[in-house]
Amino acid sequence: MLRSAGAGRGLSRFAAVAWDGDAVAYLDQRLIPRDVRVLRARTPDEFVDAIVSLAVRGAPCIGVFGAYAVALLRKTIADDALFQSEVARVRAARPTAVNLAWAVDRVLAAPDMLAEAHAIAQEQIRTDAAIAQHGVELISKGAHILTHCNTGSLATAGGGTALGVIIEAHRHGKRPRVFVDETRPLLQGARLTMFELAEAGVDAVLQSDSAAATAMAREGIDCVIVGADRVARNGDTANKVGTYGLAILAAHHGVPFYVAAPLSTFDFSLENGNAIPIEQRSAAEVEEFAGTRVAPEGSAVYNPAFDVTPAHLIAAFITEHGVLRPPYGESLSELQYRESLRLSR
Amino acid sequence: MLRSAGAGRGLSRFAAVAWDGDAVAYLDQRLIPRDVRVLRARTPDEFVDAIVSLAVRGAPCIGVFGAYAVALLRKTIADDALFQSEVARVRAARPTAVNLAWAVDRVLAAPDMLAEAHAIAQEQIRTDAAIAQHGVELISKGAHILTHCNTGSLATAGGGTALGVIIEAHRHGKRPRVFVDETRPLLQGARLTMFELAEAGVDAVLQSDSAAATAMAREGIDCVIVGADRVARNGDTANKVGTYGLAILAAHHGVPFYVAAPLSTFDFSLENGNAIPIEQRSAAEVEEFAGTRVAPEGSAVYNPAFDVTPAHLIAAFITEHGVLRPPYGESLSELQYRESLRLSR
Repeated sequence: MLRSAGAGRGLSRFAAVAWDGDAVAYLDQRLIPRDVRVLRARTPDEFVDAIVSLAVRGAPCIGVFGAYAVALLRKTIADDALFQSEVARVRAARPTAVNLAWAVDRVLAAPDMLAEAHAIAQEQIRTDAAIAQHGVELISKGAHILTHCNTGSLATAGGGTALGVIIEAHRHGKRPRVFVDETRPLLQGARLTMFELAEAGVDAVLQSDSAAATAMAREGIDCVIVGADRVARNGDTANKVGTYGLAILAAHHGVPFYVAAPLSTFDFSLENGNAIPIEQRSAAEVEEFAGTRVAPEGSAVYNPAFDVTPAHLIAAFITEHGVLRPPYGESLSELQYRESLRLSR
Repeated sequence: MLRSAGAGRGLSRFAAVAWDGDAVAYLDQRLIPRDVRVLRARTPDEFVDAIVSLAVRGAPCIGVFGAYAVALLRKTIADDALFQSEVARVRAARPTAVNLAWAVDRVLAAPDMLAEAHAIAQEQIRTDAAIAQHGVELISKGAHILTHCNTGSLATAGGGTALGVIIEAHRHGKRPRVFVDETRPLLQGARLTMFELAEAGVDAVLQSDSAAATAMAREGIDCVIVGADRVARNGDTANKVGTYGLAILAAHHGVPFYVAAPLSTFDFSLENGNAIPIEQRSAAEVEEFAGTRVAPEGSAVYNPAFDVTPAHLIAAFITEHGVLRPPYGESLSELQYRESLRLSR
């Protein structure tokens, strides 16, 4: 049931999220690569917990998960007021990523909620494929690419955004070499991206996040590609903490900095990045490493899960509708207009 | 025997390194803060292992340790050729930090090697105190200070360099708030700096290394202070990996970036930072923590232990002889000249 369309070795046999009739099945991404375990969520608490605990993560993937959650809760909660309030809790479980709210709202507005959730899941696969096709044009042969966090199949329930571009470049014979930030505190780069790149046969090198600057200075990094959790209409971009610093480092070294994201990640209601809520997460994530306590008891911790990269540091957005260049006020507004025409048809 | 002059709670009761008659005693810094254990090194292999494994670390601290190592080996190895070759092995155990070679050479050239090693240890305490006195002038009241790695008593066997400045500012009633990079891969910030700041009663906040950029953008960081492993005569500075990136981030945010280091860390034989050897360390440091593997088996790893910050990103050096400002070619050459006059007296 969790088999994805493109069967292969190991993880690629599984979709990150799948409809299971009386439950929404998902891979527990906290355990990968040590263990590949499928869990099932049925209740509002289980949906919220899966998102808050990062068992399900990646903005587009959370969108698909949230869409199925709403479809399931509509079947299991008869009382309409209760249904609305429980859906509101699920919708707010990951405040920074906008895909969750986008998908929940879309399913709520549809006449057939399950059909809409399936449509969102299917669209994500096509969207990721289009992002990969557009993005691959930006990758030169033998490029050294630096990436942060995880933006592959696990993050989108499709083919991935930034990692989808990289894997597509590999399929085109461009033989990229990927420098993977481990991505503290939760190590999505070390655990998930290294796993997905190994499965795809892509040449990948793991590094501490703080090795990125010297990699740019000494290892000939040709570009940085990351994903996004929310993009404001001026192009300011919230993504995993560390992204903003990488963008500054890339600018300093003259390295182009690309953001790969579907249109569902763009929040046209926000003028700029100042209004994007930044989730602060628990001290334990930083005080502990892989379950072992490292900092002294009682340490204070600063642990924002995301940061905001201003638009002027971003060389291009790679979307399913093509590559957008600055000024983003214009290119994004044109895209929004085209999309509104399509939706009103 | 390992009690330091300024007795206090916990770790401050211990010196990082101490002469023990027939051995050199040291704190095993790999275990702190989980465990405070004193080990003793007697043989060349034990000295090399203590340095390579980072049980003893911090450029000035390794200098003191190396000085005592030479004094001890002179007593235990009668054969002169063997003594010289074993000392050469110890001298090369940490190639990036220049204090080790500096201290070994100084002891080798002295008529009474043990007396010279004791002199180096005592000088380090006075040197650190002078660095703290000069540096405290740069700290404003209530300053938010960002630091990386560990530069306290554990790193110098004195009062510390960058951390010595910060703790001195606290003693002056300036009530600094310190943002401490955890410092992957070996977490010297989380383990050692958080411990030393807690002992000193300084307000400290732990963060992932990749939170530094957003801390600068949103938390009002007033300055960055770090230590150094080797400074070339133009001011280019090798220090723990991540330092170079921090310096770029500081420049981007208009935050002054200070390096606190004793004169023994300056290598006037090197024209610039290109000639500083950068130690590449094992993949396991990044792939594992405390025995828990996080990356998939067979991952390739990029793990330089240090990086080089170009002089133009450094606002000032805080040395025992005062605060040096750019152009460093001039200020360092004047300092070198004054020092050569002092030594020839």
